[in-house]
Amino acid sequence: MNRYWTDLAGELTPYVPGEQPRIADLVKLNTNESPYGPSPLALEAVRAAASEALRLYPDPEAGELRETLAAYHGVDKSQIFVGNGSDEVLAHTFAGLLNHDLPLLFPDITYSFYPVYAKLFGVAHETVALDAAMRIGIADYRRPAGAIILANPNAPTGIVLSLSDIASLIDDHPDIPVVVDEAYVDFGGESALALLAGRPNLLIIRTMSKSRALAGLRVGYAIGDSGLIEALTRVKDSFNSYPLGRPAQAGATASVRDDAFFRAGVEKVVRGRQAMTEGLIALGFEVLPSSANFVFARHTDLSGADWAKALRARAVLVRHFGKPRISDYLRITVGTETEIGRLLDACRDILHNR
Amino acid sequence: MNRYWTDLAGELTPYVPGEQPRIADLVKLNTNESPYGPSPLALEAVRAAASEALRLYPDPEAGELRETLAAYHGVDKSQIFVGNGSDEVLAHTFAGLLNHDLPLLFPDITYSFYPVYAKLFGVAHETVALDAAMRIGIADYRRPAGAIILANPNAPTGIVLSLSDIASLIDDHPDIPVVVDEAYVDFGGESALALLAGRPNLLIIRTMSKSRALAGLRVGYAIGDSGLIEALTRVKDSFNSYPLGRPAQAGATASVRDDAFFRAGVEKVVRGRQAMTEGLIALGFEVLPSSANFVFARHTDLSGADWAKALRARAVLVRHFGKPRISDYLRITVGTETEIGRLLDACRDILHNR
Repeated sequence: MNRYWTDLAGELTPYVPGEQPRIADLVKLNTNESPYGPSPLALEAVRAAASEALRLYPDPEAGELRETLAAYHGVDKSQIFVGNGSDEVLAHTFAGLLNHDLPLLFPDITYSFYPVYAKLFGVAHETVALDAAMRIGIADYRRPAGAIILANPNAPTGIVLSLSDIASLIDDHPDIPVVVDEAYVDFGGESALALLAGRPNLLIIRTMSKSRALAGLRVGYAIGDSGLIEALTRVKDSFNSYPLGRPAQAGATASVRDDAFFRAGVEKVVRGRQAMTEGLIALGFEVLPSSANFVFARHTDLSGADWAKALRARAVLVRHFGKPRISDYLRITVGTETEIGRLLDACRDILHNR
Repeated sequence: MNRYWTDLAGELTPYVPGEQPRIADLVKLNTNESPYGPSPLALEAVRAAASEALRLYPDPEAGELRETLAAYHGVDKSQIFVGNGSDEVLAHTFAGLLNHDLPLLFPDITYSFYPVYAKLFGVAHETVALDAAMRIGIADYRRPAGAIILANPNAPTGIVLSLSDIASLIDDHPDIPVVVDEAYVDFGGESALALLAGRPNLLIIRTMSKSRALAGLRVGYAIGDSGLIEALTRVKDSFNSYPLGRPAQAGATASVRDDAFFRAGVEKVVRGRQAMTEGLIALGFEVLPSSANFVFARHTDLSGADWAKALRARAVLVRHFGKPRISDYLRITVGTETEIGRLLDACRDILHNR
C-alpha cells in the first residue's frame, strides 16, 4: 500500500490469469485456447486493417461487427454489445446490471474473476454451493437476490445445465437480471439464445477467445434485450469510447462470416475432448463430464498441486486452482492429437516414477 | 432507465466522442488524428501478428512493449503501465489514484472525459477556472485537494504550461497524486518526464493515437513511480487481464522503435499548424497559441455552432463544444497541406456567402 493509492486500490485482490510462459516445445493446456488457429479470413482481415487508416480512430460503435453478429444470431443490432474480450464485457455488466441492494448470486465454484469484479464495483454477493457432483442446482437460487450470474457450461468444471433448467432459472427471477456466461457453449452446451424472446432480463455473454481461436485479438460480446444492452453502452461510454481497435473489429467480423471454418474447428476440439477423456480415465483419472474445451479431472495417487508440478517438469502446462473443494483437480485444455498424446505420456511417466 | 439497470447505469452522463462518419471526400479535422499514417514498421508488425499465434492470449503484462517504452524514456520497466488507449489508462487512474476524501481538482475547460470518469467512479471533484486568456494558473490549485489532474498542453485550448510551472505545481502538492495528461506533448510541450526523479506523486499519461498516428490500434500508457504504477496494475488486473491484443502490442512496440519516422511526422504537423494558424488569422479568426496538433479558434462573424454547421455542409468536419466559455470556439485538427487549403477555402466561402 502506497500513500497515494485510493482505498479501492489497496483493497483489491486481482485475478491471476494462467501463465503465458516462453518455454520451448511446451504443451500449453492451461488457458483454454484453441489448439487450432483462427479462420484464414480473419487473419487476412487483420492484415488488411494494418493500413494507413490505422491513423484514424475505429468506429466507436463497432457497427459492422455488431450487424454481422446480429445477423448471425438472428437478433437486432441493438441487442448486441461488443467489448475488449468478454472480461471487459463482464466488467461493464457488473457495473451496469449486477450491483443492487440484494446480493448477486453465483456458484461457489465458477469463473474466479466474478468475485474480483464484485470487489472492484462494490457488489454485495453470495455464493451458492455446487452439489456433491459439482453441478449447479437451480432450485438453490430460489432466494432473495439482486441479480444472478452463472457460466454455462460452468468453469472450471465443464458441466452443462440443460436449456430447460436455464429457462426455469430465468422464469423463477423475472424481476432481476440473469446473466449466462456462454464462453464455452459452442463446445457442447445449448445456448440461452433460444430463450431471449419474452425475457427482457436475460443477458448472454460470449467470447471469441475459445471457439473462434482469437484469444490474441481480444473480442467478446453480449446478447440481450436492447434495454440491458443500453446499460452496458452507457458504462462503456463512460469508460473508453473505443475499446475495439480496427484490427480487432475487422478480424472478428471476418471470423463470424467464416462459419464453415468455425464449425470444423469446434468439431475437432469435441473429438479431441473425447479422446483425452478416455485416455485420462484409462490412467485412473476421474473426469467430470465436460461440455467445454477442457476437462476437469483428479487422480487419487497425487494431489492436484503435485500433478501440476510434475506435468510442468515435463513441459506440459495445465491449470491448478489451490482453492477449497477443487484443489485436487486439474483443468486441462483439449489440445491437438499430438498434444493429447504428450499429456497422456507425461501422466504415464509420472505414475510410473511415483 | 430500465428496471434492471444499476443506479450507476442510470446516473451516468457518457462521454460523446467526435464523429467517425463515412462521407466521401471528407476533410476530417474533428478528432485530432494524425494526417499522416503510422510507421511502416508498425504496420508490418501488425501484419506479422496476424498469424496462427492469434489463437493464444497476449502477454498480460505486455513485457516487450513496456521494456521498449522504458528504454525509450530512460526509466525502469516497473515505471510503465500500458492500456487500451489512454482513455483506459485514465479510467484506471481515476479508480486507483484519484478518488480521495478531498476533492480532485481539474480545470473547468479541459478534456471533457474527466468529469465522466469522476461520475463513473464516484470521485468528489472541483473544477478550477482557466484565466481570461484560457490559461491554467497553477496558483489557483493551492487549496485543499485529494489529487490533481491536468492536460499539458491543455485540451481543447492547446495552450501549454512551462516545465517550471508543472514542477511548482507538483512541489506545491507533495502529498497527493498529480497527473499530467501529455496526450499532445510531442507537438510542442516540455514533458514532465524530466521531473520524475524525486517526485513519487507524479504520473504522466501518454497516447499513441496522436503523434504516433495509431488511433485505430488503441494503445496508451502511463509513466511514473513504480508505486503509482502498481495501483494501476492492481485495478487493471481486477478489470481485464489482457487489455492489449497481440496486434496492438506488436504495432506499438515497432512504432516506438522507429524514432526517425516519429520525429519527421511530428515536424510536419508542427509546420502544418503554423500554416493553418496564419491562414485562419488572415481570415479574421482569433487563434489561441497552440502547442498541440489542433488549434482552438473563434471568429466574431458567426457562432461556433454556425461555423461547424457551415463547414460540415462543405464536407469539412471540425469539433464544436456547446459548453459555457467555449461555445464560440472551434477545435480544428491540423491536417495535410491539401486539407488545410480546403479548410481555408471553405472558411472563405462561408464568409463570402454570409
